[in-house]
Amino acid sequence: MSDRLSFIRSDLSQLAAYKPHPGGNPTHPVDRLDTNESPLDLPLELKEKLTYLYQHTLEANRYPDGSHYKLQEAIAEYVVESAQVSWDVTRDRISVGNGSDELIRSLLIATCVGGEGSILVATPTFSMYGILATTLGIRVTTIGRTENNFAINLTQAKAAISNRQQPPVKVVFVVHPNSPTGNCLTPEELNWLRNLPQDILVVVDEAYFEYSQTSVAEEIAQHPNWVILRTFSKAFRLAAHRVGYAIANTDLIQVLEKVRLPYNLPAFSQTAALVALQNRHLLLPLVEETIKERAKMWQALTTDFADKLQVWETRANFFYLRLKNQEHQNEALADLTAKLKTQGTLIRHTGGGLRITVGTKEENQRTLQRLAN
Amino acid sequence: MSDRLSFIRSDLSQLAAYKPHPGGNPTHPVDRLDTNESPLDLPLELKEKLTYLYQHTLEANRYPDGSHYKLQEAIAEYVVESAQVSWDVTRDRISVGNGSDELIRSLLIATCVGGEGSILVATPTFSMYGILATTLGIRVTTIGRTENNFAINLTQAKAAISNRQQPPVKVVFVVHPNSPTGNCLTPEELNWLRNLPQDILVVVDEAYFEYSQTSVAEEIAQHPNWVILRTFSKAFRLAAHRVGYAIANTDLIQVLEKVRLPYNLPAFSQTAALVALQNRHLLLPLVEETIKERAKMWQALTTDFADKLQVWETRANFFYLRLKNQEHQNEALADLTAKLKTQGTLIRHTGGGLRITVGTKEENQRTLQRLAN
Repeated sequence: MSDRLSFIRSDLSQLAAYKPHPGGNPTHPVDRLDTNESPLDLPLELKEKLTYLYQHTLEANRYPDGSHYKLQEAIAEYVVESAQVSWDVTRDRISVGNGSDELIRSLLIATCVGGEGSILVATPTFSMYGILATTLGIRVTTIGRTENNFAINLTQAKAAISNRQQPPVKVVFVVHPNSPTGNCLTPEELNWLRNLPQDILVVVDEAYFEYSQTSVAEEIAQHPNWVILRTFSKAFRLAAHRVGYAIANTDLIQVLEKVRLPYNLPAFSQTAALVALQNRHLLLPLVEETIKERAKMWQALTTDFADKLQVWETRANFFYLRLKNQEHQNEALADLTAKLKTQGTLIRHTGGGLRITVGTKEENQRTLQRLAN
Repeated sequence: MSDRLSFIRSDLSQLAAYKPHPGGNPTHPVDRLDTNESPLDLPLELKEKLTYLYQHTLEANRYPDGSHYKLQEAIAEYVVESAQVSWDVTRDRISVGNGSDELIRSLLIATCVGGEGSILVATPTFSMYGILATTLGIRVTTIGRTENNFAINLTQAKAAISNRQQPPVKVVFVVHPNSPTGNCLTPEELNWLRNLPQDILVVVDEAYFEYSQTSVAEEIAQHPNWVILRTFSKAFRLAAHRVGYAIANTDLIQVLEKVRLPYNLPAFSQTAALVALQNRHLLLPLVEETIKERAKMWQALTTDFADKLQVWETRANFFYLRLKNQEHQNEALADLTAKLKTQGTLIRHTGGGLRITVGTKEENQRTLQRLAN
């Protein structure tokens, strides 16, 4: 098909289109536990506040604030408060994106396009790093993880860095805690990242920070080559609005501001993120409930299902699991995913395992029942 | 500053950050005639409809529909209706972006990154083609326009295409009508575009289509290497929501779908664009008013200001003008821009001229008064 279009880069024709989540409301009641969203919509009170602001203060006909001034300030304050950061996080340490996806793309553009660098990822991990790199013609170096705890194979990682391949590794992407496996960076992994040469950019994706309550934000001030990515799509319940942010030192933030689209974030998305931050006391208690639900599920999965399922400890809002004593693991997991879908629970089969989001109490009960059948 | 960061591409450090429109509400009443927006917000009726949908059907905690299915269908229908297109425009001929900016970036990524191609633009024109190309490390070949009517210098254009420069020109960007100069493509320019080799992508930006009522949409079916860009930011009064779209043949649309971010458009932006299309009978009459206002301004500018101002005919919702008999044109235009700003009218000094948006009747009267003083 696209090979008829000779102006399209030849390496793109091999790439399949990413199939996003179909979205919209399913016809039947369905437990959507496949994309790690928060299980609840915004409280009515906040939706009413947002609709009031939309009607009375937002001019639909005018371009949004391209500086993100207020939102950067509110995020900076939240970063300090939420991770007990002792250095001075000001708005010029924050860049806001149309989801973290846009920030990932900007980082790739700023560092690697034009054959200037390749990226390093340890799989299984968030697929978007590799997908966005490939669309930009950037080479992806993939290393493995230890099977027992999904820690990065640091021997492979060090070899990939010191190997004088062309183009050299310029960016390392890690998720903390990792998706789909739920594990946080280990002390050894953190030390490896701290000791990487300054000419390598370290991206620490903290999309699930509110569920893990652990962050490397305190260390950013000492590392001009580190950047943290966070999102409003999980704990802040704003996946529909597409707001992500980066935390880094001023020089790196200035580069992100230079590369991003000037009006990258709709006005109402900015308003929603700002209102969510201002009212976080109404939103974040649900995180504690999810953490309690996670503990209950862990208990059930590791006792009632101990014979059948291998489950890993998680610091995020999802579990990762595989079937025990199963020769045809992937086929069996595909069957189980399909069976759960028929029963009304959507989960994600990825990286040779199943990723299941922690939902509401009722959803989680149904998940356990359906896994048992 | 960023030269301390050795992982950043060296060519990026020379690039200044784009200074977007400051956004937000100005403290004093100001006529914002510098960004070619529609002068009026959505009617209350539509804002109420949108807030109802936000409260009752949109789940803020869920990712948006990444397929844009409904919106693509509604846009396809509008394309046929608005430009009397006789071929079958189906949803697979439409790709939706986070503003046209994202579509421009996707087209550049799909064709030119990695030293595979350069782009051709005729200045003065919309600056974003060159800016986004530069952030991607893509070379921009710039040619001129004829002074009397801003037609593209086709001799230079043909020379740039046939010149076997490395990398070769792979994309030609034109605006129809052009910004900031307001002129539509001439028959000669159109013939040149029609006869360009198939290995060159032709991007026709019709951002101001509703004001010009002229489109190349009918010809898309015959040109696999043509793509039209349109936007909801002008006549549809949705600049705050950031929605643009591309019209092309299926193969090219598939490439755009492959390159774009999977969840590039917030759910509420999709809803707003869909509701605006469904209610276009409420929105588009303002276009007719703007066209009438444009005629009145043309009359005034070419008679009352005939000694002082050189004004060009326009098919868009803005005028382009220069000062007559002025040796220090740019300094004088900067002074005039500053003077109007002090008086409360924002206009745009660009490409060696002034671009002034046609606003409401009252705004236009003030513009003329302030130009006279």
